[in-house]
Amino acid sequence: MTDDILKTYRYFLKDSIRKTIAFQLTDQNQGVPAPPIEKPYPEGATLIDLPGPDEWHGIFQADITHAIGNRKSHRVYRDQSLSLKELAYLLWCTQGVRGKRFHGHAYRNVPSAGCRHALETYLAVFNVDDIDAGVYRYLPLSHQLVFEFKDDLLSQKMIIASLNQSYPGKSAVTFIWSAVPYRMEWRYGLAAHKVIALDAGHVCQNLYLACEAIDAGTCAIAAYDQEELDELLGLDGEEEFAIYLAPVGKVRR
Amino acid sequence: MTDDILKTYRYFLKDSIRKTIAFQLTDQNQGVPAPPIEKPYPEGATLIDLPGPDEWHGIFQADITHAIGNRKSHRVYRDQSLSLKELAYLLWCTQGVRGKRFHGHAYRNVPSAGCRHALETYLAVFNVDDIDAGVYRYLPLSHQLVFEFKDDLLSQKMIIASLNQSYPGKSAVTFIWSAVPYRMEWRYGLAAHKVIALDAGHVCQNLYLACEAIDAGTCAIAAYDQEELDELLGLDGEEEFAIYLAPVGKVRR
Repeated sequence: MTDDILKTYRYFLKDSIRKTIAFQLTDQNQGVPAPPIEKPYPEGATLIDLPGPDEWHGIFQADITHAIGNRKSHRVYRDQSLSLKELAYLLWCTQGVRGKRFHGHAYRNVPSAGCRHALETYLAVFNVDDIDAGVYRYLPLSHQLVFEFKDDLLSQKMIIASLNQSYPGKSAVTFIWSAVPYRMEWRYGLAAHKVIALDAGHVCQNLYLACEAIDAGTCAIAAYDQEELDELLGLDGEEEFAIYLAPVGKVRR
Repeated sequence: MTDDILKTYRYFLKDSIRKTIAFQLTDQNQGVPAPPIEKPYPEGATLIDLPGPDEWHGIFQADITHAIGNRKSHRVYRDQSLSLKELAYLLWCTQGVRGKRFHGHAYRNVPSAGCRHALETYLAVFNVDDIDAGVYRYLPLSHQLVFEFKDDLLSQKMIIASLNQSYPGKSAVTFIWSAVPYRMEWRYGLAAHKVIALDAGHVCQNLYLACEAIDAGTCAIAAYDQEELDELLGLDGEEEFAIYLAPVGKVRR
């Protein structure tokens, strides 16, 4: 590993690049319309309405100090389903939209650089009440799921795409976050990519903590087979690609 | 912006690189001893003991669902100090060590890839009870602060280092996380850098949520002058450099 290569990789974590960017030339400042704040879905797609915040108000609770102090990595889950309400809660905690959407952005329950929110959430569902196994995507704007596809080999394929780690294929549901980089590049150009990774960290931490309120657990995965996972999800690997995973299931405490 | 440059930056967010790494050649697998899990401090440095979890048990509380749903960016703070206990709580929530440390690692209150925890926490303290203004660093292993230096122009310098955003110089305390990349590279080689950014996101999200338990607020900053900030903190910009900031202060709700 030469010093030059290391320097290149470390550079990514710095903000030195900002001073080299002509921000007046970003697409945003050139008047290019903002890209969609949520990936569109095909006409005729199957949509599933999710329970909303009123349905877990006063039910899903955990003290923040307790949740932070007790969170740990869970890679083994009980053979027990998640309710659709519990799944909806996790989605709301990690990417839920609050308030009005306007001028090409919408506030969510997590922070994002410039409110760009360049992530999509896919779910490999194995054991959730009231919905079939398969791959779904969360639609934050309408708090719905869109059904993507069914695959009888989903469990095995998730394990292979996770470099033979088994728990992404043995969870109740595995969250897979993808990046849609242009959503952030539109505003920040080459200063977009570091903050997309920071944002994915924000989101995943909320998942860890929200699990504490529903007797579930997770353990994030950053080691995966990029090309296998993108292919499995039908992502082109360039305008959208997977960046982080987190299997979730009920746990014993 | 050519497609090639964009591809290079997007590549950083992918895990394609993992398949190109000869992990048997990482320093860890070559038998190189693990680097320190906390940056050492000079002999004779001034250390400050911090209040521990027993002191906020049952006091600093917030429901996780409420905290997630109510978190928002706060860039304006009340002219009011943080208590040392409140500061200690925020540090514990974001980087506190739990349990035993062994074999070159220690579990913390946040997840980190491979339990490497390649971050250090600096504080630009402006208004915290019982400690003088100045720059400090958190020592997670002993739950202490080490005093770094005093600077009468700290507020102005923080503002300059934040590209003239004023709130990092007008907070009660501004958190500044640095990366010590070798701590992660030792285990993961060139797959280290993306996960350091993810980890910083985990940490910062806990700060956002912990603020909800102490009537404080924050707003993370990823846009800063890398070289100015590193120089201010006395970091060499290569083996250690700033990666993320978050000013904190009391807020009206």
